[in-house]
Amino acid sequence: MNHSNNQNSQNTPHRNHNSRDAGQKKKHYTVQSKSGTKPRDSHGTPVRIIPLGGLGEIGKNMTVFECSSDMFILDCGLAFPDAEMPGVDIVIPDFTYVERNQSKLRGIVITHGHEDHIGGLAYLLKKVNVPVYASALTIGLIKNKLEEHGILNRVSLNVVEPRKHVKMGCMSVEFIRVNHSIPGSMGMAIHTPAGVLVHTGDFKIDYTPIDNQTIDLARFGELGNRGVLALMADSTNAERPGYTPSERKVGESFENLFKRAGNKRIIIATFSSNIHRVQQIINMAVKTKRKVAVLGRSMVNVIATAMELGYLEVPKNILIDIEAVNLYAPEQLVLVTTGSQGEPMSALTRMAKHDHNKITITPMDFIILSATPIPGNEKHVTQVVNELLKSGAEVIYESMYEVHVSGHACQEELKLMMSLTKPKFFIPMHGEYKHLVKHRKLAMEMGIPKENILLASIGNVIETDGTKLQIVSQVPAGRTLVDGLGVGDVGSVVLRDRKQLSEDGLIIVIVGLERFSSRVVVGPEIISRGFVYVREADEIISRARQLMSDELDRCSVAELREWTALKSRLRESMSGFIFENMKRTPMILPIILEI
Amino acid sequence: MNHSNNQNSQNTPHRNHNSRDAGQKKKHYTVQSKSGTKPRDSHGTPVRIIPLGGLGEIGKNMTVFECSSDMFILDCGLAFPDAEMPGVDIVIPDFTYVERNQSKLRGIVITHGHEDHIGGLAYLLKKVNVPVYASALTIGLIKNKLEEHGILNRVSLNVVEPRKHVKMGCMSVEFIRVNHSIPGSMGMAIHTPAGVLVHTGDFKIDYTPIDNQTIDLARFGELGNRGVLALMADSTNAERPGYTPSERKVGESFENLFKRAGNKRIIIATFSSNIHRVQQIINMAVKTKRKVAVLGRSMVNVIATAMELGYLEVPKNILIDIEAVNLYAPEQLVLVTTGSQGEPMSALTRMAKHDHNKITITPMDFIILSATPIPGNEKHVTQVVNELLKSGAEVIYESMYEVHVSGHACQEELKLMMSLTKPKFFIPMHGEYKHLVKHRKLAMEMGIPKENILLASIGNVIETDGTKLQIVSQVPAGRTLVDGLGVGDVGSVVLRDRKQLSEDGLIIVIVGLERFSSRVVVGPEIISRGFVYVREADEIISRARQLMSDELDRCSVAELREWTALKSRLRESMSGFIFENMKRTPMILPIILEI
Repeated sequence: MNHSNNQNSQNTPHRNHNSRDAGQKKKHYTVQSKSGTKPRDSHGTPVRIIPLGGLGEIGKNMTVFECSSDMFILDCGLAFPDAEMPGVDIVIPDFTYVERNQSKLRGIVITHGHEDHIGGLAYLLKKVNVPVYASALTIGLIKNKLEEHGILNRVSLNVVEPRKHVKMGCMSVEFIRVNHSIPGSMGMAIHTPAGVLVHTGDFKIDYTPIDNQTIDLARFGELGNRGVLALMADSTNAERPGYTPSERKVGESFENLFKRAGNKRIIIATFSSNIHRVQQIINMAVKTKRKVAVLGRSMVNVIATAMELGYLEVPKNILIDIEAVNLYAPEQLVLVTTGSQGEPMSALTRMAKHDHNKITITPMDFIILSATPIPGNEKHVTQVVNELLKSGAEVIYESMYEVHVSGHACQEELKLMMSLTKPKFFIPMHGEYKHLVKHRKLAMEMGIPKENILLASIGNVIETDGTKLQIVSQVPAGRTLVDGLGVGDVGSVVLRDRKQLSEDGLIIVIVGLERFSSRVVVGPEIISRGFVYVREADEIISRARQLMSDELDRCSVAELREWTALKSRLRESMSGFIFENMKRTPMILPIILEI
Repeated sequence: MNHSNNQNSQNTPHRNHNSRDAGQKKKHYTVQSKSGTKPRDSHGTPVRIIPLGGLGEIGKNMTVFECSSDMFILDCGLAFPDAEMPGVDIVIPDFTYVERNQSKLRGIVITHGHEDHIGGLAYLLKKVNVPVYASALTIGLIKNKLEEHGILNRVSLNVVEPRKHVKMGCMSVEFIRVNHSIPGSMGMAIHTPAGVLVHTGDFKIDYTPIDNQTIDLARFGELGNRGVLALMADSTNAERPGYTPSERKVGESFENLFKRAGNKRIIIATFSSNIHRVQQIINMAVKTKRKVAVLGRSMVNVIATAMELGYLEVPKNILIDIEAVNLYAPEQLVLVTTGSQGEPMSALTRMAKHDHNKITITPMDFIILSATPIPGNEKHVTQVVNELLKSGAEVIYESMYEVHVSGHACQEELKLMMSLTKPKFFIPMHGEYKHLVKHRKLAMEMGIPKENILLASIGNVIETDGTKLQIVSQVPAGRTLVDGLGVGDVGSVVLRDRKQLSEDGLIIVIVGLERFSSRVVVGPEIISRGFVYVREADEIISRARQLMSDELDRCSVAELREWTALKSRLRESMSGFIFENMKRTPMILPIILEI
């Protein structure tokens, strides 16, 4: 299945990128002025970087690289909706630009298998069918997704080994191993006519990773020594000083906690994609002679994929079926489950709420939340912890126990990456604006001049010819909301309505007008939902009905025939009445029927 | 205005509470079995503690104390609504029990002036008008609230000094100074016929407070030495090891940051009630020859009250009007503002969004968020930080700068309080279940037997006669939602409707039936809101209309006359159709009109 080409970096199309002190003369490009004026070959052709997600936001990471008539995409993730997007399932990037330019599109490379890097892929591939390149585990996880969407058969999926290249027209993408909270994570060196661009993907530096596959620092150094035009690096932890601890640290904590659990059943909730965390749990289970049962759909799927591809080593007779759990004593068991973020439908949350059909929490449970709440999930996690405690279980959830380490590089690691790659230009990637600003500050401390650091936004077209790097134009970018089977049919109007409905409900006013005379023959009827408990609000509702009735009485026949004006008149009158009496602003929906 | 009585603790009605090793014989009380069987005087009478808020939750703190025919209330706070309560402004305790027993009610004591301790008071006083007792600042802040509610004139407000007592029938409440993030904070010793109960209120231990008014540790010790029946203590920080730093630590950070700000304008956002924080900002302004302007309604109000009552010392000519800000250079200014929690309508949020009519953020601003986000506010705060950074301002927001300290005692302080008061029984107060559990663990480490520690819930009636302490019954307790002017008229049905409306909107189906024939003469009409962007959903809407039409056609005349059954039939058919085609579950609202 390995379709990657074996060309190595020495053979990339063009390597005469500029050293840091070059490029002094002022020369401003714009995309417009260049296209169509003079045709040229790929040599010396500027390259364009177009982030379509992941800048100024967490999630839906996606970047387009373009050179001459060639284009490829790096990552295609999703973001989770916030409180301002009720009912929305997931958020994906706006693909307009890619669709309009699909004739140029040579392929998609994926850095790793997290949702914020692969979660939009199925939606994109339904629109543009091009080959996808990634590490074996990433491809395995993508397969599961495409299967769910029913498009697995029509997509070309290609496994790429570290240090191998994928040719994308006049550009070539080299995969470089990095560490992260999922195995098979890759950074990319993009060899272009303008020079080498390094994109770290999500990364951390782990000198003692569970699979002994340390980030390929040497290759980053080699690239740096030969000259890197621009570094694009993960900013997620740019606010955090120091180093992110090794994943192995969590194993040490597990060792202590398994002892402390004594003869209790151990339940550990973590991210399903953190295979190395799961590996450490399995290792501890073997050591303490416990069996392991796996709960939660995504945990079951990911573990199956990881075992199949050799990313997870599980001795025989360790895994047991969830159905067999009750055959074992508590001290013979470890349950590995989803739900470390307090997700409402997850296995752990259902256990906490006594709503799980297989597992009942008792004082004989020792529960470890091996994760840190993602911003926005704090309240859900706390609720789950409270409920588990109420069942008498012991719950380990605080950071003081070191049951979780981050998957992202902290400040000292970010500096190390800059030291190795010595880029001329620097573009902080993956983070909210505050993270990008902090990352810029680090880069300036490392001696990169401020004017060589670009804080970009999604939709920016960043162009570089090797001497300058700047934003030259803008393409459509934003968010596409997925709600059920609908992709993009929920927009700002619908969200605004949902928000208003959620805050004060609605009042419907129904009036039937006789066709010829325009006499009121039905209503006004008042119906409300989400507004007030109706049995206690008889009086206000009947006053509202009287108000509408009076308003209609005051209308001339001509006015009764102007429905648009009549509707606003009823709406305003009702709004005013409700606000004055209750200080609420429900949606008012006048419905006029011709009888 | 000081109506408190001067009786000191030596003269409390009854002091023969039991030492720790007493009370071994089993004796179970229930409220029912006692009332009415034998009348008795207050000596030996058991005392009842009834928490109505603040246990198993953060906020709306309220506890009822009852003995014989006397009752008083300690605190009456509000809670802020969570994401499950859209449109709700505030949440207050259920006052049913107090209303039913108001003939016994002797008064209300308030520990300090935070919203979660005074925010429900105006609503309670509208139902039961009894005297209120608190420190001078707390009374000042309560006055502001009662004035807003238009009930200031009819309430008796009484200032109580530390170490003074307030008589509540056969009980007596002694005020004891504590430290917290608002001045004038009090713990309470409740002298009852059954023994002394100590309630810490919210507290921390600050040996170097800004007003030099250290917590009255000596009095807690004296009480402990003479015998404390039960300690009820603040559990907010029970998860945190060590000590909470002194408020003075923040002053040291301000000193460094004011230097770092150089010639920029300084803007500091903090909690309006943190008078000592404001005092330190003013002191630094004086030292660095800057003027201070105050922004945000609550900040302006609290500062005015604090100055009037002597809690805040402001040299002449330091405060300037917000209108005068533009007369000064950036380096001559400090702005103190609300909005440290990213509250959508606060001054800082409006500045961040370029929506403030007086202040524009520029790169000449140095902004300090002197607060930690309260759980649930993290995303709002981050958004504000991002926006401020985009305007080019420097923003100090991380914990590493020590620009905020907690107002609550950490583990070592909680232990110190137990050491001083040496209680026979212990009831962790103020916290979610996980905090209460941690606090119990600390108490057990301090040697209090597990059976003497009570994890209670709101509505529990806790009874003690000095030898035992146990839950004997339950009274109504819960949450009353305030939405606009409505108190309690939004309940679970309305919230469920709001939630459904917010997630998938609604579809209205209107059918008009002729009165005698039951023929369909109007519609079916389909109207939707918050469901789908209508222009792109023409097809699905017209198929839905056809579906309803077909459904009606299949109905016999008899079926058309059974409106309840007809409505469910239309609802189910529409629900099924929408879910099948779009995987969404909007509210379906069939409306049948008789023409």
